[in-house]
Amino acid sequence: MTPATGKLPARDADAGNLSRAGDLFQLLRDGRARTRAELAVSTGLARSTVASRIDALMLSGLVGPAGEALSSGGRPPSRFAFNPAARLVLAADVGATHVIVAVTDLGGNILAEHRLAQQVADGPEAVLDRVLTQGQELLSGAGRKVEELAGVGIGLPGPVEHDTGRPVKPPIMPGWDGFDVVGYVQRSLPVPVLVDNDVNIMALGERAANWPEHGNFFFVKVATGIGSGIISSGELQRGANGTAGDLGHVQVARGHDVLCACGNYGCLEALASGPAIVRALRGQGVEVAKGADVLRLAADGNLQAIQALRQAGRDIGEVLATVVNLLNPSVIVVGGSMGEAGEHLVAGIREVVYRRSPPLATSHLRIVLSMAGGRAAILGASQMVTQYVLSPAVIEATLAGTAIAG
Amino acid sequence: MTPATGKLPARDADAGNLSRAGDLFQLLRDGRARTRAELAVSTGLARSTVASRIDALMLSGLVGPAGEALSSGGRPPSRFAFNPAARLVLAADVGATHVIVAVTDLGGNILAEHRLAQQVADGPEAVLDRVLTQGQELLSGAGRKVEELAGVGIGLPGPVEHDTGRPVKPPIMPGWDGFDVVGYVQRSLPVPVLVDNDVNIMALGERAANWPEHGNFFFVKVATGIGSGIISSGELQRGANGTAGDLGHVQVARGHDVLCACGNYGCLEALASGPAIVRALRGQGVEVAKGADVLRLAADGNLQAIQALRQAGRDIGEVLATVVNLLNPSVIVVGGSMGEAGEHLVAGIREVVYRRSPPLATSHLRIVLSMAGGRAAILGASQMVTQYVLSPAVIEATLAGTAIAG
Repeated sequence: MTPATGKLPARDADAGNLSRAGDLFQLLRDGRARTRAELAVSTGLARSTVASRIDALMLSGLVGPAGEALSSGGRPPSRFAFNPAARLVLAADVGATHVIVAVTDLGGNILAEHRLAQQVADGPEAVLDRVLTQGQELLSGAGRKVEELAGVGIGLPGPVEHDTGRPVKPPIMPGWDGFDVVGYVQRSLPVPVLVDNDVNIMALGERAANWPEHGNFFFVKVATGIGSGIISSGELQRGANGTAGDLGHVQVARGHDVLCACGNYGCLEALASGPAIVRALRGQGVEVAKGADVLRLAADGNLQAIQALRQAGRDIGEVLATVVNLLNPSVIVVGGSMGEAGEHLVAGIREVVYRRSPPLATSHLRIVLSMAGGRAAILGASQMVTQYVLSPAVIEATLAGTAIAG
Repeated sequence: MTPATGKLPARDADAGNLSRAGDLFQLLRDGRARTRAELAVSTGLARSTVASRIDALMLSGLVGPAGEALSSGGRPPSRFAFNPAARLVLAADVGATHVIVAVTDLGGNILAEHRLAQQVADGPEAVLDRVLTQGQELLSGAGRKVEELAGVGIGLPGPVEHDTGRPVKPPIMPGWDGFDVVGYVQRSLPVPVLVDNDVNIMALGERAANWPEHGNFFFVKVATGIGSGIISSGELQRGANGTAGDLGHVQVARGHDVLCACGNYGCLEALASGPAIVRALRGQGVEVAKGADVLRLAADGNLQAIQALRQAGRDIGEVLATVVNLLNPSVIVVGGSMGEAGEHLVAGIREVVYRRSPPLATSHLRIVLSMAGGRAAILGASQMVTQYVLSPAVIEATLAGTAIAG
C-alpha cells in the first residue's frame, strides 16, 4: 500500500449533505448516461429515493432524458444524463474603458457576446445597467429566456471581497467602493451573482479553456497594472483577505529609487507596467503616449522599445522566480494588454526565471503567452458561476428550494 | 441569494465513492453519537445498508458503541460514535543528528515519545531500523499492539517526492536519494506509510495544534537551512513537483555578492540561516562556532549577536513580504532552531513585512514564534497520517478490504 497521491482530503467537507440528491448529480456530472437502477447500485440509495431525486433534477433542467437502456424484459428503462446546454450564465468582463458581456452555457460555450465602450468611472449603476440591458438583448437574440439563467458572473478591474461581491477601495473605480454589486444585479435577475477581480477570473478562464489538467497554475496580467491569479491544487487561491496574487507591489532589486503610486519604492508595477515602460522610453526621448505605442514600435523593430519590453520582462521574471520557488506551478501564463502582444516581454521573463529558480522546479515549467487572450475574463466569469451553481451544496439547496444563507 | 463564501468546490471529488460506508464515517467524524435510525435519515441510505456499514466500521475499530438513545417503546436503540483512541499512528521526525519517535492516537494525542541521537548520514536502513525498533518499544511500553497502528508518518530533512515517499537528491542525506522508504518500512509494518519533508510536516503540526481555524497559514523554518510549508484554503500546497515552499533560494536585495552553495548569488539561505549568521559574526571577530552560540550571546545581551539576528530577520522579512503579497496568509509562524529561540529575528521580520506589504493584507496578519516548537514535526507526521487514513476514499477502501492502488 502506498500513500494517496497529491492533495490530502479536505477536512471540512459538508458531510451532512452527502448522499442527497446533489450526490446523484455529481455522479452524473461526468456526462455519462445512467438508468435509475444503475444509480441506485452506485450510490446505495433506495430505488424510491433515486426516483424522486431524478425527478427533482429533471425539473431543474440540469438532468435530461438520454435514451433508453437495453431491456431485460418488459419496458426498457430510461437513462439520464447531465445537460450542460440546459442552463445559461451571464458573464461580464468590466474593464477600465470597456465592458464585454456574454451568454454561455454550463459547459463554458459562448452563445453570444458583445463588447461595449464604457468607462468604469461612470459608476456602478451606469455600468451594471448596461451589463443587464446588454445581457437581456443577447439572451433574446439567442432565442433564450431570462428564466434559463443559472447565475451571473462579473469581473471588475479592482479588489473585490469575493464573499460579498463588494469592491474594496478600488483605485480606478470612483463610486464603486463597497457597492453592493450582488444586490443591485439581483433586483433585476434573481439568481446567484458572483463577483471577483479581473485577474482571478482571467486565471480561471485561461486554465479552464487551455490547461484544465494543470492543478498548479499561475496567471500574470501585465497591463496598466500588474496582478496575478493563483491556482494551487486545482483551486483559485484568494488568501485570508482576498488579496492573494497582488504581484504589482512586490519590490524588485533594480527599482530601489523608483517611487510607486502606493507610497513604497521599487514596486514591480512602477517598473514594468505599461505606463512604466512608456515613462522609461520617454525618458530616452522616444515618442510614445501609451502601452500600445510601445508594442507597435517593437513590432516595427524599434530597438529601444524592444529593450524596454525585455527589461520589463526581466523585472517581472525576478518576481516570478520567487513565485516558482514558492508555489512550483507547472504553467505560468502571461496575459494582459502588454503581455499578450508578443515574445519580447516573455523572453525577459524566461531569461530570469530559468536562471534564478531551482532545476527541479523548472524542469517541466512552461512560461507561455495567453491563448484565451481577450476572452480569458469572460470564460473565467462563466467558469466561476458554473463551479458554484453545480457544487454539491448549491445543487442540494436548489433542489430543496432553499436559498443559500445570506 | 448571495454567493457561497470562500473556496469553490473541488471538481474532482470521487463521486463514485459517495454514499458508501465511508460517508457514514465522515458524518460520525464530528464525534457526535448517533443511532442507526438517525444515520438512515441523515444519509438517505436504506436501514439495512446503514446496519451493515455500521458493522463494518465497528469491526475496523474506528467507530464504537456510545450508549443508548431514549426508547420510544421496546429495546432502546444503540448509539455509535467515532473513537479516535482506537487506532494509533507511529510518527517519526528525522533530523540531521536526531530522530524523535512518537506514538499518537487519531486525535493527535501523544501517548509515548522518545528522542534518539542519530546521524541521518548513517543511511536509510540504519535510521529506519532505529525508528522501527523504537516505535515497537514505545507501543509495548504503552501496552498497545502493532495491530492497532493505522499508519506511519515520517518527516525527513530534505526534498521528498510525496507521492512515492522517496527522497529526491537530498543534500545532507547520503545514501537516501531515491530510497524506497515506504517499501522498507512496510516490510516490518504493513500499514500506510506517508513521507514528506520536515518543513511541510511542521506546518501541518503547528497548524493542527495551534491554528486549526486558519486556512491560509505559512510556516517558515530557520535553522541550518531556510524553508517553508504553505497551507492555502486549508490544504498543504506541494506544487507541481513537490518543491513548493523552497524559500531558501529566493534572492534578496542585500546579498547580490554573496555566493550560495546552490551556485547562485544572494540566496536568502546564504544570508540569514544559522551558518550564515555565524559567518557574519566571525567576520566581525565574534567567537561563535554554531547557531546555538549566537542565540546564547544574544540572550546574554551581546549587541553584535542581536544585530546579526535582527538583520537576518530583515532579510527573511523581505521574502516574507512577497509571500504576504502573493498568498495573503492570516498567520506566519517562525520556527526552527534559530526561529524558535527568541524575538530578535521575529522583530526584524515584522519590521520589513509591515513596511513592505499592503495594509489590507497585514491588517489582521499575525507573525509569531512557533508554539509547538520541537514537537511541530511529530504532530505534523501524525496529522499527515490521520488526514490520509480517515479520508473518504481510504476509509472506503479499508472497509472493502481493498488495498489502495500501488
